[in-house]
Amino acid sequence: MWRELLPIGRDPRSGGYHRSPFGSAERECVAWYVDEAARRGLELEWDGQGNGVAWWWPTGRSGDGGAARDNDPATHASSQQDVAGFAGGSAHDGVHGDSSGRAPSPAGRVLVGSHLDSVADGGAFDGPLGVVSAFAAIDLMHERGATPAKPIGVAMFVEEEGSRFGVACLGSRLATGTIAPDTAARLADRDGVTLLDAMAAAGLDHPDLGPSPLLDDVDHFVELHVEQGRDMVDRDAAVAVASASWAHGRWRFDFTGQPNHAGTTAMDDRADPMLTYAMTALAANKQARVLGARATFGRVEVEPNNTNAIPSHVAGWLDARAADAELVEKVVATIERQAAERADRDRTHVSMTVESVSPTVEFDRELATRLAALLGDVPIIPTGAGHDAAILQQVGIPSAMLFVRNPTGVSHAPEEQAEMPDCLAGVEALAVVLTELAS
Amino acid sequence: MWRELLPIGRDPRSGGYHRSPFGSAERECVAWYVDEAARRGLELEWDGQGNGVAWWWPTGRSGDGGAARDNDPATHASSQQDVAGFAGGSAHDGVHGDSSGRAPSPAGRVLVGSHLDSVADGGAFDGPLGVVSAFAAIDLMHERGATPAKPIGVAMFVEEEGSRFGVACLGSRLATGTIAPDTAARLADRDGVTLLDAMAAAGLDHPDLGPSPLLDDVDHFVELHVEQGRDMVDRDAAVAVASASWAHGRWRFDFTGQPNHAGTTAMDDRADPMLTYAMTALAANKQARVLGARATFGRVEVEPNNTNAIPSHVAGWLDARAADAELVEKVVATIERQAAERADRDRTHVSMTVESVSPTVEFDRELATRLAALLGDVPIIPTGAGHDAAILQQVGIPSAMLFVRNPTGVSHAPEEQAEMPDCLAGVEALAVVLTELAS
Repeated sequence: MWRELLPIGRDPRSGGYHRSPFGSAERECVAWYVDEAARRGLELEWDGQGNGVAWWWPTGRSGDGGAARDNDPATHASSQQDVAGFAGGSAHDGVHGDSSGRAPSPAGRVLVGSHLDSVADGGAFDGPLGVVSAFAAIDLMHERGATPAKPIGVAMFVEEEGSRFGVACLGSRLATGTIAPDTAARLADRDGVTLLDAMAAAGLDHPDLGPSPLLDDVDHFVELHVEQGRDMVDRDAAVAVASASWAHGRWRFDFTGQPNHAGTTAMDDRADPMLTYAMTALAANKQARVLGARATFGRVEVEPNNTNAIPSHVAGWLDARAADAELVEKVVATIERQAAERADRDRTHVSMTVESVSPTVEFDRELATRLAALLGDVPIIPTGAGHDAAILQQVGIPSAMLFVRNPTGVSHAPEEQAEMPDCLAGVEALAVVLTELAS
Repeated sequence: MWRELLPIGRDPRSGGYHRSPFGSAERECVAWYVDEAARRGLELEWDGQGNGVAWWWPTGRSGDGGAARDNDPATHASSQQDVAGFAGGSAHDGVHGDSSGRAPSPAGRVLVGSHLDSVADGGAFDGPLGVVSAFAAIDLMHERGATPAKPIGVAMFVEEEGSRFGVACLGSRLATGTIAPDTAARLADRDGVTLLDAMAAAGLDHPDLGPSPLLDDVDHFVELHVEQGRDMVDRDAAVAVASASWAHGRWRFDFTGQPNHAGTTAMDDRADPMLTYAMTALAANKQARVLGARATFGRVEVEPNNTNAIPSHVAGWLDARAADAELVEKVVATIERQAAERADRDRTHVSMTVESVSPTVEFDRELATRLAALLGDVPIIPTGAGHDAAILQQVGIPSAMLFVRNPTGVSHAPEEQAEMPDCLAGVEALAVVLTELAS
């Protein structure tokens, strides 16, 4: 599976990946996902925002309308005809998943998966590792003759990174009703392309934003993800279970000043918003250190951005995170206050806009404890990153995350890494967990 | 003239102008220049970089090849036929000005003019005021029955701001041989369009970069310019004469770090180049204040510029200026040292590249003194800006600048201003100066 994924959206210069949501590279990854589902005879369903689930139906159960179907993943190797016949009915139909004709699943359903989009110049594993491992875990379960009692679906959520439309986990937020469809429909990327236009350009002809039937009857979601730090390196653990996702958010700071000539304007006559921005970026770093949180200005846009002009406007985006929401609030309030004080000194103006805020999400504690024990008492650790699993957990779907060790600790960059033995340990763990949850 | 110029390249939102060299708005301004020259029966000549001169030939003198010609600017009002017949021969021929067939002018020639390009979101006056005033001064001289002994040429230099190709005064640098044609040919804008491609796209079919015959026999150049500061407001002077153009230059700082996830990377594990950049921008401001110079970071570019990613790379451009080159050197060296020290602390790397350096240019002192006296002892003041006049002065063409008061003191921004009475005073001064220099 990696052989097919690795070239898609790769920058040959940096070795990093850019799979922008609804862009061509991400769509190639989605096509790969469709192929992998078809190859295993899994039944694909889509919702109105382009999230997909590839279902493995338990033997003897019916998927939709009670029709008997080939639900054996082994067909992927032995019977191309079966696969085609199977996938042809519903894969890629682009219809808002309609489960009305389907018998309810009193025993519930289990979702497993992640996302396929990336940040600009991101790593190979953030997202795809969860989808690849889900398919591989199903293969392993099949090899071992597992007979799950519940349907298991390999889920793929769109725009998890928020790199294009500014709201992280947009696909799962829409699916869970955590963001209003109207609000999402108004989102636009840096070129002014709206979410709906981007979907249309990607060939999703009938987008229908909002709560997703794909989540009906789901009683567990498991997301496997590469670790985005060095905690597991320090603990010498190949696999871990998540305890919580830190509270986090994004705030846009707009600094405005008096544009002027860089050469002729006396230093005392200036109102330079670049200075206010610079001090604010340094203050964010310092406050995060002092208060035990994380704060970053990683994105900045300058107007007019000329070498010989004092800018009229500098926009900087703050990413702040901490173990609890109160601490995030405190960090952001302190940075905002320091920015305002410096703006007074610089005779500039600063205003702050909340772009998104996510509370701390404790993953289902009983589930985490149970899975960690099942996997041989692997560590249970928090993460500073947001994930679709946290969004699903927030709306009451018991969710768990498995982490796979990342030797560099680096993420959202080409240096992100996962070694094959650790990846295989992740697949093994996922198969064990799915066998347990779907039994 | 202003009525026609004011709408060209204007941003209705900010009120600022963007006339990018060889772009459509700047080319509209050039078309206006061609029309104004034709309307006055001035003979247009172009050089291989697209600089233009509209010549007013003295009565009875020959321009090229000794052919008699209608050289009376009054024809623009009375005889459209003459104008067409006059201008048709050489205007807009795009040929590298060839003066081989022209009789030398033992008495010399006088150039007067400025540029028509602007920075992004610049003011209305920086550049065009000098060209408009040159045409208006010639009209005034004609009304007064002036009979100049030397040819007077209204000059228009391309890419003065350096806003597109990064080298200020590119047109006059090429014309004077101050920059090598090969070096200029390799320049590209932010979209990777080279200077030659931009010229071709603008319809200059046979660019021939290098020393310009338009400057042959020129014994004086006068550039009128809006003041880019508040010195004349403080002195209560409508018009002033330039003493010198400060030493100035542009340096690119490249800060590189370890790209990583903004949420999951511990503060202590970071190598964030944004912090090194921010400290350097603040240091530049502080050093300029301490040392009595000017230093600005007005342009910054971040990779990958994602809210949730610690950047891999931040590029910042330093504009530094001072009364003398040694002081500029000292300011830049201090900033570079402080940047390197901070980079050590941040575990980032910084490298500095010189993009351009211009020494202090003292305008011809005897000329400045003479003109200031002629204009009624107007002030003689320095400027922090670079100008085409300084480039011509550097290669030994005695050059002078006249400044017109700017009530806001703001330049390179929409708030740049010049009041009509001051503009008229500027035209009057220019007519007096030209009458003197061309006699």
